Amino acid sequence: MDNVTRIGISIEPELLEKFDQMIEQRQYTNRSEAVRDLIRKNLVTDEWEKGIGTVVGSVTVVYDYDQHNVVDKLAELQHKNHSLIHSASQVRLDEHTCLEVIIVQGSPFEIKDFTDKVQATKGVNHAELARCTMK
Amino acid sequence: MDNVTRIGISIEPELLEKFDQMIEQRQYTNRSEAVRDLIRKNLVTDEWEKGIGTVVGSVTVVYDYDQHNVVDKLAELQHKNHSLIHSASQVRLDEHTCLEVIIVQGSPFEIKDFTDKVQATKGVNHAELARCTMK
Amino acid sequence: MDNVTRIGISIEPELLEKFDQMIEQRQYTNRSEAVRDLIRKNLVTDEWEKGIGTVVGSVTVVYDYDQHNVVDKLAELQHKNHSLIHSASQVRLDEHTCLEVIIVQGSPFEIKDFTDKVQATKGVNHAELARCTMK
Amino acid sequence: MDNVTRIGISIEPELLEKFDQMIEQRQYTNRSEAVRDLIRKNLVTDEWEKGIGTVVGSVTVVYDYDQHNVVDKLAELQHKNHSLIHSASQVRLDEHTCLEVIIVQGSPFEIKDFTDKVQATKGVNHAELARCTMK
Repeated sequence: MDNVTRIGISIEPELLEKFDQMIEQRQYTNRSEAVRDLIRKNLVTDEWEKGIGTVVGSVTVVYDYDQHNVVDKLAELQHKNHSLIHSASQVRLDEHTCLEVIIVQGSPFEIKDFTDKVQATKGVNHAELARCTMK
Repeated sequence: MDNVTRIGISIEPELLEKFDQMIEQRQYTNRSEAVRDLIRKNLVTDEWEKGIGTVVGSVTVVYDYDQHNVVDKLAELQHKNHSLIHSASQVRLDEHTCLEVIIVQGSPFEIKDFTDKVQATKGVNHAELARCTMK
Repeated sequence: MDNVTRIGISIEPELLEKFDQMIEQRQYTNRSEAVRDLIRKNLVTDEWEKGIGTVVGSVTVVYDYDQHNVVDKLAELQHKNHSLIHSASQVRLDEHTCLEVIIVQGSPFEIKDFTDKVQATKGVNHAELARCTMK
Repeated sequence: MDNVTRIGISIEPELLEKFDQMIEQRQYTNRSEAVRDLIRKNLVTDEWEKGIGTVVGSVTVVYDYDQHNVVDKLAELQHKNHSLIHSASQVRLDEHTCLEVIIVQGSPFEIKDFTDKVQATKGVNHAELARCTMK
């Protein structure tokens, strides 16, 4: 980060002590890094709930790959929503279960709708959306 | 707050700008107040998930008051868990529906268990836990 | 519940076994009660996120009552938003800390905005929204 | 699903109507599929919160790839936690920003700890955990 602004924050000593414990436990380099993370997490929630702008994230899907042509159905769903989808990768967890991660970018509304449809697909056990932003 | 420490935080100008927009929108007095809130919210999650210490909160319950003796059952459940319960208050939402808020204090584990049992009570439509800490 | 419909659900035996364990642990009377609760919880999230219709809930506030006229400020904020507010009750947690629960009813958007403003009030440590619906 | 059990559920007509609307909107094939999903989502939360057994999921990371050797640091962190990590894949979002998804399997506690450390890494903007189970 070449270009930073410095701001001053006043804080009660007891709260600062607890914050410093959290910083140490999670192995943050310094307080600034930790405060910036809290601010970013808050902004992510805001952007996704307001539903405006372009966001990024991933949809993690767990499915039984020998059930109900689930692989074909997931491929078709991704094809229909290709404008939202960056890429996807799969790992096999055991002889029946597959985990696929689909990287998505687009409007929060469309991504949530896509996630709902993945979840509703027969043979899909879980579909979990991770919400991020590009900033 | 008579007793405060002052710390310096470095932050990218773009992130600061977005943070300041959020601060203005929510009508925070200043950045310190907003940063302290983010830190506190993070600590609440931590304390409740680790399940240690004494926390406070409330259980909001919506129920049909003329169903299944739900009022008696909720009273009995509160009686059995009286060590967790500070107080409770009710409002009537319409001719069938009542909202009750139960203020709780104790171990996170016991409070979650109490909330599950309230939720499982026949006639109860919702039981929603609000998690806070005393700090 | 005098008026009920009966529906059939097919479910894998392993998933049913785990569901039954959860039902027993939380002391549900029967599976129907537990399934209805899962459906209701899902509807609550939906209604609050879509932001349409009238919802109910509560805002749990923890504050230092001898700081920054916080009691007056909370009273003023409730006065300004009186159309959202059913009632409020307070308990004292220790010599400095007060917990107040404000029962709210109205549009999801307005309730979230009110909660943000309560949270942003100087002297308020936490403001936690519990989201319910009347159904 | 060759092997299924059939259970009967009683439900108020109004709640069923709302449930059916949700089913139609999300394009579920039938009610059984939707009820099973609700049960599974509930079990995921339970397993991750209790912290027992082996779970799966993914960590989605957004970072500035030309900052603070973040790529090296993430590689090292994954190396140190190799027993948790199945695989990882990256996409470039713009000239500065990279999104990486790390597929993880192990104890909930260790995965959460790993996610915290990824989040705390300088140059990482977001690290978001998606929680699933193998069932």
